[in-house]
Amino acid sequence: MAQGQFIPPKRTLMGPGPSDVSQRVLDALSRPTIGHLDPEFIRLMDEIKELLQYAFQTENALTMPVSAPGSAGMETCFVNLVEPGDKVIVCRNGVFGGRMLENVERCGGTAVMVDDAWGRAVDVEKVKAALEANPDAKIVAFVHAETSTGAVSDAKAIAELARQHDCLTIVDTVTSLGGSELRVDDWGLDAVYSGTQKCLSCIPGISPVTFSERALEKANNRGSKVQSWFLDLNLVTAYWGTGAKRAYHHTAPVNDLYAFHESLLMLKEEGLENSWARHQSLHEKLIAGLTVLGLTVVPPEGERLAQLNTVMIPEGIDDATVRGRLLADYNLEIGAGLGDFAGKAWRIGLMGSACTEDNVRFCLESLETVLIDLGADVEKGAAVTAAFA
Amino acid sequence: MAQGQFIPPKRTLMGPGPSDVSQRVLDALSRPTIGHLDPEFIRLMDEIKELLQYAFQTENALTMPVSAPGSAGMETCFVNLVEPGDKVIVCRNGVFGGRMLENVERCGGTAVMVDDAWGRAVDVEKVKAALEANPDAKIVAFVHAETSTGAVSDAKAIAELARQHDCLTIVDTVTSLGGSELRVDDWGLDAVYSGTQKCLSCIPGISPVTFSERALEKANNRGSKVQSWFLDLNLVTAYWGTGAKRAYHHTAPVNDLYAFHESLLMLKEEGLENSWARHQSLHEKLIAGLTVLGLTVVPPEGERLAQLNTVMIPEGIDDATVRGRLLADYNLEIGAGLGDFAGKAWRIGLMGSACTEDNVRFCLESLETVLIDLGADVEKGAAVTAAFA
Repeated sequence: MAQGQFIPPKRTLMGPGPSDVSQRVLDALSRPTIGHLDPEFIRLMDEIKELLQYAFQTENALTMPVSAPGSAGMETCFVNLVEPGDKVIVCRNGVFGGRMLENVERCGGTAVMVDDAWGRAVDVEKVKAALEANPDAKIVAFVHAETSTGAVSDAKAIAELARQHDCLTIVDTVTSLGGSELRVDDWGLDAVYSGTQKCLSCIPGISPVTFSERALEKANNRGSKVQSWFLDLNLVTAYWGTGAKRAYHHTAPVNDLYAFHESLLMLKEEGLENSWARHQSLHEKLIAGLTVLGLTVVPPEGERLAQLNTVMIPEGIDDATVRGRLLADYNLEIGAGLGDFAGKAWRIGLMGSACTEDNVRFCLESLETVLIDLGADVEKGAAVTAAFA
Repeated sequence: MAQGQFIPPKRTLMGPGPSDVSQRVLDALSRPTIGHLDPEFIRLMDEIKELLQYAFQTENALTMPVSAPGSAGMETCFVNLVEPGDKVIVCRNGVFGGRMLENVERCGGTAVMVDDAWGRAVDVEKVKAALEANPDAKIVAFVHAETSTGAVSDAKAIAELARQHDCLTIVDTVTSLGGSELRVDDWGLDAVYSGTQKCLSCIPGISPVTFSERALEKANNRGSKVQSWFLDLNLVTAYWGTGAKRAYHHTAPVNDLYAFHESLLMLKEEGLENSWARHQSLHEKLIAGLTVLGLTVVPPEGERLAQLNTVMIPEGIDDATVRGRLLADYNLEIGAGLGDFAGKAWRIGLMGSACTEDNVRFCLESLETVLIDLGADVEKGAAVTAAFA
């Protein structure tokens, strides 16, 4: 194979993430590398922690980015909190709940599954029943924003129930952070992980996490060592800790953290509530347009994420053909269905920097053209008209 | 705390890594983000695998970057290969051998330690004795290039012994890859991990690994699930695998991989043997200069890494004062001692893009000036003269 410099195409990223990364973040990313123990870098780390506390709406002292993707953020929560023999209630309404089950089992825990249909929110009543039936449960794990289905669950209500039953919560906010209302402290969430490549529009590769005092108490009083050296909070916090002295644990992804800092700064400049409102407002326009194109949204109203729109592919339309055409003719990426939805649904993201009026228009126009080409009975221009009526 | 855009100082990085990242790599890093399942990205992944096979001198099909720092590359080797109850011979002659012990224990394995003095190579005779005394050992784990001491061990000889005793090898090449002779296939190494931020002069954050067929056979025939979901090779290879179809596992660090590809391309352009020779030749010059400054190299001749020079701090000179002055007055970073060497030694890196004649000169002049200021009895200019005589 001939190898040469790689010049990527310029895509518009409207899948389930990564989303479009702004030039500001790319510029920050490519500033000169400095050492991971440089005093200037320590200062940057402190700023990142503060900005991330704002994004998560928390005062948790342990609020930091894990030096690896969201799956490692998930694993950080599970390996530190789940001890062999612990009973964990796991809510599963999509791919990522299933991944939580994998994590519980690999930590030697026992999972009690609360299953809901793909595309639906977690049923709070079922969680209540599971908690009542399992008084020895120690943790409730659930996904706030299911990236595989576009459904949002009532994190506040689930966390409240968990506290009433003296359980900790582990919460996946990979797709919600920055794009949907999320209040870690007000809602009483205990161990929360997220991603950078969704509504923060940073490059993929690191995973923000935050831990409550209650969660740390369990982690610090374990009877057994954390099975992962790399993700052991007792060790990681010596580097990311609050003291002036930082002990080497691993070499931090210095440039990625420049970019992460910039993306958090942009979020703060816009204001968290403004960002949530922007996602919601453009989501409504996108859905109005997609409906005209004959696409039906999977989650019912009230359970829909603004930033990730899962829609059923119309009868007779081939999934791969359409996505291939959008990529080849328009440099537009939308997401394929995952798991149960493979080949049956598309996931259209409106995340962070990619969540703009221009992108809603562009996506509707491109998709409309391709669908008309493939025989759909739609009037040219109808989707954008419906969206921006 | 006031938060604003972060503009890092422009340092010269001559510590234990990260090393100076070239503008070419930084430019690649900041190209527009595309999706981790984009056909163009899959093509990039295939090129990365080929270039990495060249860097490792291997034809191993499973040769890829783990999406996390070197510590996670280490953990990938251990969690996939060590099963509960497995006996592992661990060679420890610095910090990273100790970290291997941690990994073995957290995987439920039993470690047999082969200890050598800090700053010395692993004693091959001791490894032989340990293998003979432990016929039930399954794995020999050792560090090729000890980043904490600057010592290089005879990877070829240790691997040969391990094979004779039907053991697999797990080998840390974090600091050797690209800077010292390393021949994975010729030497018969089985599970090898490295870092990007040393002699490849790429940004920190990903960890190249390669696995022999023998290693994969053990990983694929485990009786128990790999304890880490994120690092489970059975799952990761569905994404990094050789087939045309790639299954989603986690979101790859897209931009980091642009940079990694570029750094591998630069290594191939220079030629591996030329890169090894450049490191060796400038190391000899640096050492000639440092000797004049009264600094003594820790490892004996024949056990010294070219790219990481650990030198004892002269009597009466304060470690932190000197490193602080170099950073403040010259924007020059050299490394502190680690573990047993904290406060007693410096680690001066000559890695990748930072391994240049200009940098050797700059480092010697800066250090000389600071030491003379602090009362050292050295003639101004003597170090550079000795180096380039």
